[in-house]
Amino acid sequence: MSRAEVITSARNPLLKEVRRALSRGTLTADGLCVAETFHLLEEALRSGLETPVVVASDSVRGVVERHVGKLHGVRLITVPDAVFQEVSATETAQGVLALVRPPQWTMEHVLRGHSLVVILDGVQDPGNAGAIVRAAEAFGATGLLLLKGTVSPWNAKTLRASAGSLFRVPFLEGVAPDLARKAVAQHKMEVFVAVPRASLSLKDAALDGRCALVIGSEGRGVSKEMEGAGLSLHIPTTGVESLNAAMAAGILLYEAWRQRTVK
Amino acid sequence: MSRAEVITSARNPLLKEVRRALSRGTLTADGLCVAETFHLLEEALRSGLETPVVVASDSVRGVVERHVGKLHGVRLITVPDAVFQEVSATETAQGVLALVRPPQWTMEHVLRGHSLVVILDGVQDPGNAGAIVRAAEAFGATGLLLLKGTVSPWNAKTLRASAGSLFRVPFLEGVAPDLARKAVAQHKMEVFVAVPRASLSLKDAALDGRCALVIGSEGRGVSKEMEGAGLSLHIPTTGVESLNAAMAAGILLYEAWRQRTVK
Repeated sequence: MSRAEVITSARNPLLKEVRRALSRGTLTADGLCVAETFHLLEEALRSGLETPVVVASDSVRGVVERHVGKLHGVRLITVPDAVFQEVSATETAQGVLALVRPPQWTMEHVLRGHSLVVILDGVQDPGNAGAIVRAAEAFGATGLLLLKGTVSPWNAKTLRASAGSLFRVPFLEGVAPDLARKAVAQHKMEVFVAVPRASLSLKDAALDGRCALVIGSEGRGVSKEMEGAGLSLHIPTTGVESLNAAMAAGILLYEAWRQRTVK
Repeated sequence: MSRAEVITSARNPLLKEVRRALSRGTLTADGLCVAETFHLLEEALRSGLETPVVVASDSVRGVVERHVGKLHGVRLITVPDAVFQEVSATETAQGVLALVRPPQWTMEHVLRGHSLVVILDGVQDPGNAGAIVRAAEAFGATGLLLLKGTVSPWNAKTLRASAGSLFRVPFLEGVAPDLARKAVAQHKMEVFVAVPRASLSLKDAALDGRCALVIGSEGRGVSKEMEGAGLSLHIPTTGVESLNAAMAAGILLYEAWRQRTVK
């Protein structure tokens, strides 16, 4: 790799584009996602994704050079600390961000084999969405469908909460509900819709076949379009009416994993 | 109840004290917790806790009066919207907060009967801590021990994430690690310490006896003092190294509930 380029102004077009993507919670105009923190940089590299640009603040320049210095095709840019802070999405920025080419997935990737799929139906909180993607990878889900109205996976908070799982687990975003229903029907999957007062309890549900788990939004629950997509299922709880959306998804995924794996 | 009192300045001593408690994430000097949102007001009343003061902003005065108007011993205070916003901990305040007398618990409450206890060992994120308390109630834990260095349960975010469970589940805060270890040993409880790479897998752990689950901090994991307190246990996952602390606790609690309940 050639030596680092130096940029000294936050008005530089590339930095402006990074900042815009971070503040909107989307990809850059070039279709790259912005991964902040050393941990996410590591995860992007570990996942073998194209990482065309890495931006380091002056204070951590040496550390970042040791990380990416020997990689081909990585453009390392250093900026003054104050400029980095201006670009960053976090109050306590670590001083490093990477532009990463997200993997491209198809419906076949998501629904492949003995599929276990999470359908996010309007989950709004990026921390919840990211934690669900992380749990999906942890418990062997084949993929996720993020329906229209769900928070962007490329929101900085979603990506951080996913701890890098978004770089590895197949998913599609902006999926129309009827397309999702059609796809899981074609693949002969059983659909379970998480609803607090459903008659079917998780302890009686068979999650060992090919199945999809629908998780609704924090405020309004599952949408009208997805409500009738399959069996309504509740997690048996005492005292509380429901669990946090991420917690509920994690428990469904764990139970599905357990039924598929243990004995 | 007498009619509402009107306070027009955020410099009023009571409002100043509320604001101070909210910004520090602690109880008021009188030992009351500040419960914001209609939901938490409802939960406090449903839990039968003493609620000596309710503050409503002018815009929601009517709704709040219908909620608490017939209750004895509640002092209803109305304030201009701008004053409420100044006192509130949230950017989009609903315009209602209640001062609530927290329930008093002893170690005997937490460890009673066929005990299932969660020990929070330095959990820092109030959203995680609150979600764990909510899951603890949901899956029938007898209580929690919040060790020294754990976020305050009376932080506004902890309380909100607990969705009111902090009003009902027995817990002690600021507990010294050696006191916690001694108490669970005296009660002949099996202690399981959640550690990402432990040799014992959750699928092989017997959580149907009296037991305690130790959850470490998000960044540093379990403390030296608690590491050796019992069996190290990991949640079997693929791809990811660990789960979010709240997710991990929820899954342990669900599995404990399952083993204790199903068949």
